[in-house]
Amino acid sequence: MPLLVTGSIAIDTVRTPFGVSENCLGGSAVYFSMAASFFSSVRLVAVVGPDCPFDLAVTFAGKDVDLQGVEVRTGSKTFRWAGSYHGPMSEAITDKVELNVLAERPPQVPAGYKDSRYVFLANTAPALQQELLEQIEKPAFVAADTMNCWIQDHLEDLKRLLQKVDALVLNNGEARQLTGEDNLTKAAGEILQMGPAVVIIKKGEHGSMMCGKDGVSFILPGFPTGRVKDPTGAGDSFAGALMGYLAEQDRTDIEALKTAIAYGTVAASFTVEDFSAQRLTSITRAVIDKRFETLRKLTRF
Amino acid sequence: MPLLVTGSIAIDTVRTPFGVSENCLGGSAVYFSMAASFFSSVRLVAVVGPDCPFDLAVTFAGKDVDLQGVEVRTGSKTFRWAGSYHGPMSEAITDKVELNVLAERPPQVPAGYKDSRYVFLANTAPALQQELLEQIEKPAFVAADTMNCWIQDHLEDLKRLLQKVDALVLNNGEARQLTGEDNLTKAAGEILQMGPAVVIIKKGEHGSMMCGKDGVSFILPGFPTGRVKDPTGAGDSFAGALMGYLAEQDRTDIEALKTAIAYGTVAASFTVEDFSAQRLTSITRAVIDKRFETLRKLTRF
Repeated sequence: MPLLVTGSIAIDTVRTPFGVSENCLGGSAVYFSMAASFFSSVRLVAVVGPDCPFDLAVTFAGKDVDLQGVEVRTGSKTFRWAGSYHGPMSEAITDKVELNVLAERPPQVPAGYKDSRYVFLANTAPALQQELLEQIEKPAFVAADTMNCWIQDHLEDLKRLLQKVDALVLNNGEARQLTGEDNLTKAAGEILQMGPAVVIIKKGEHGSMMCGKDGVSFILPGFPTGRVKDPTGAGDSFAGALMGYLAEQDRTDIEALKTAIAYGTVAASFTVEDFSAQRLTSITRAVIDKRFETLRKLTRF
Repeated sequence: MPLLVTGSIAIDTVRTPFGVSENCLGGSAVYFSMAASFFSSVRLVAVVGPDCPFDLAVTFAGKDVDLQGVEVRTGSKTFRWAGSYHGPMSEAITDKVELNVLAERPPQVPAGYKDSRYVFLANTAPALQQELLEQIEKPAFVAADTMNCWIQDHLEDLKRLLQKVDALVLNNGEARQLTGEDNLTKAAGEILQMGPAVVIIKKGEHGSMMCGKDGVSFILPGFPTGRVKDPTGAGDSFAGALMGYLAEQDRTDIEALKTAIAYGTVAASFTVEDFSAQRLTSITRAVIDKRFETLRKLTRF
């Protein structure tokens, strides 16, 4: 089933205890699409400026990612993010951000994408997420991400959006901020009251949990990799593999969601093993499936 | 199989966002014994002062906990700890500590306990842990806990102890401190080099991981409870149920260890639902087994 993602394409500069990666390819839609493409065809909707130094056709060569929805906007500039990680790298410090195109009008969804059945609205202003969503005719399953600045400054827009999505995927800090509740199990319950049928809370290296109308339905640790170099894009890769698997199966029942989260966990664990999307571009579905089986074995009792 | 624990009995004062519990029963050996007693008979070795206000015979009434090893030391005073938790309660702030008996000589292991097969050395000075261990004739499986102050000030003693134990059970902060390594998978590998065959790293609400000679062998999230009131004693209850299960089964193979960790996770999740050991004293093995099955269901994919 066709999977559409709207999100950012970024020029990132990332510093971690393992080195510096300057002006490398980043952005939520890039990590998402790369991870999703192991499972499903992907339609990427995003905007860059003419300054974008990356040839996405090369980046995604051999992957089933349709770039027709990537707009190169004359007179604008590509989104830039500079960030750093310290110690156990559990949190990104934003050193510098230039919104550029992200502060402008959203991209248009190409006419040929309007029949997309699976839709992921990566993190951007919730009013724009809604505007993008309204361009899709009859989605079967819509998931969205969000972040601290929208929760703080655009809460009403976000609450309106939450009534239109099937799933919200966010991290533990965001879940606490959105609800004012420190206990994640309770926070998830409160988010469900805002509209989505499913809430998936990402806890970085500590894994994730899923909640639905019957409470907590799934908990999974992060995959323990000894080679964490750069956590950037882990959450977006998680969402990418998750949505990719659902689109591949064309199922969103609880068992499918569990398996999808496990695949998301595996994709994220590869992403963090190198800078930018380097590790993710170097692997195959077979490599992902092998680690998926290891994850299953490591969590069984 | 008889299980022996050496550790503290404390007079705790705990403040959390959910209230204050003044001068309540605490201490590693208390939480450990309470959790372990659901599985195995327990021999408790600890010291209190004559000021100890708790009647342990009442506390452990109906439980298979032998209190013969509890010394009431004339002229001394019971260990006291005052601590508080804030926000998501992931860390205890020590407000006040009076070591009292803990700063003195360790208790004697009663002659009748010397044949104990399973031994848990709860957190105290590593030289004392070793002294206690030497009083056991032929233990089958020895596990120890430790904490930041011993890693900082008694590292050589701790390293000597690690050569004598089968398993080290410690939290993520301690694992990082002991090795200087932020990545927990790598940190576990370095601890294994110090002697124990098994390392179990506790990550608070985020669960735990086990590593052995073949690397990571088990990862398990914390049990998601919406009613966290007081995290004190969670780690000791985890260790108690873990060791209790191993002693009950008289097995320490990898599958037994996995199940033991899952029981430890369940015991910890009950402990945090009320102040002191109140919740733990109010449940039965059947209640534990029910949540154990829920944990299994929540982690399966």
